[in-house]
Amino acid sequence: MPRLEIIGLTGLPEITAGVALAPLMVAALDRAGMSLAPTDVMVVTQKIVSKSEGCEVDLATIEPSASARAWSAAYDKDPRLLELVLREAIRVVRMDRGVLITETRHGLVCANSGVDVSNAQPGHALTLPPDPDASAARLRAGVAAATGVAPGVVISDTFGRPWREGLVNVAIGLAGVRAFDDHRGERDVFGRVLHASVLAIADEVASAAELVMSKTRQVPVVLVRGLDFGGAGRGRDLLREPGRDLFR
Amino acid sequence: MPRLEIIGLTGLPEITAGVALAPLMVAALDRAGMSLAPTDVMVVTQKIVSKSEGCEVDLATIEPSASARAWSAAYDKDPRLLELVLREAIRVVRMDRGVLITETRHGLVCANSGVDVSNAQPGHALTLPPDPDASAARLRAGVAAATGVAPGVVISDTFGRPWREGLVNVAIGLAGVRAFDDHRGERDVFGRVLHASVLAIADEVASAAELVMSKTRQVPVVLVRGLDFGGAGRGRDLLREPGRDLFR
Repeated sequence: MPRLEIIGLTGLPEITAGVALAPLMVAALDRAGMSLAPTDVMVVTQKIVSKSEGCEVDLATIEPSASARAWSAAYDKDPRLLELVLREAIRVVRMDRGVLITETRHGLVCANSGVDVSNAQPGHALTLPPDPDASAARLRAGVAAATGVAPGVVISDTFGRPWREGLVNVAIGLAGVRAFDDHRGERDVFGRVLHASVLAIADEVASAAELVMSKTRQVPVVLVRGLDFGGAGRGRDLLREPGRDLFR
Repeated sequence: MPRLEIIGLTGLPEITAGVALAPLMVAALDRAGMSLAPTDVMVVTQKIVSKSEGCEVDLATIEPSASARAWSAAYDKDPRLLELVLREAIRVVRMDRGVLITETRHGLVCANSGVDVSNAQPGHALTLPPDPDASAARLRAGVAAATGVAPGVVISDTFGRPWREGLVNVAIGLAGVRAFDDHRGERDVFGRVLHASVLAIADEVASAAELVMSKTRQVPVVLVRGLDFGGAGRGRDLLREPGRDLFR
């Protein structure tokens, strides 16, 4: 029987700028009495990656534009936060009814350019890591240096979706993990070739991990164990090119 | 440590119309030597639910309209299949570049109204179950009748997404499972109240299950065990009301 274990790692300290995450991830494994297998994947929440990389902006340093002030006033938002969101964006996809969907410089399409005030220091906001694939690669190398085993690493964030309520966790950065399982060309039970069968397994790994993370449960790192998701995928592979997208 | 197990159940026979699924799900558990816990969730792929409910259409019975013929010819598609897709839809959300995104009568927004020819009998197409929440409730009751334990049931299907490549598994029908974990009103590490923190855990459970389904394609039922996702959610709770949606 194919079987997967999703194990939340706890006890990490509050992360601040400059703190190296990989040793803390390894320490959390040690506390749990677990040694890494090469097929293990460690899912790390964007929040602690952003904090460790110092992606925290003091809102007092932000001077909102007149248009940011006007829109914010209409929806009772902090105009400095809106200004920061717009600075992180290369495209506004929707700006309607108090909801702001943007395309970030990474090519991610999400609410508020991924900028978040929850769990940021008071008066501050967290932005996304500038290069989540590079962040994932650094964490992978750091864990490998400490343990001799290079696990897959997924950096995840929770995004909303059109058409469906609620957020789900997705993969924004990858190292040592494939983005997709591509079943095109395989045959169904009647021998017909499958066509639209490319599964975004890195996103599904992130979603699986979120089930044990939960927002306030203090589980910023999750071990996914039991199947081999290894590969050379990138978070950016998961991004549809704007020219192929029907919704922006 | 919070921990979850995702276990694929194998060995189910090929499903045909009128076959009762619940006894086959129980038999698969028995073969695996597992007894159900009340917090277990069984994720069942839409494909076998549709087959057991006879949601298979003989394409020879479909007379395509002139417009279905024209569009199909332009993109080298089967016009009868397009006609069926349009009949299953209450709204065309996008019809562009050979891609057809519709809203089904359930309110699901997905490619081709969820109509699929893979794993259907030759010359046939599978449609979505007419009421996936009712299907889930029947499976739950059937399993409970046989085992004395009523697990959560999620009926899942793989959908594409705007902005991101690849399909992910989502929940289209639920019984005994909550749709969301709502963290609004809880406080972050700095004591601030969280706002946009409603997680679509039923979709994440479906995605987690897909990771063990994807491997062989012969895993139509997955057991998710270890955390309590119990509740009275409905697949339709996960559907954003058209009036609140910025993308249709």
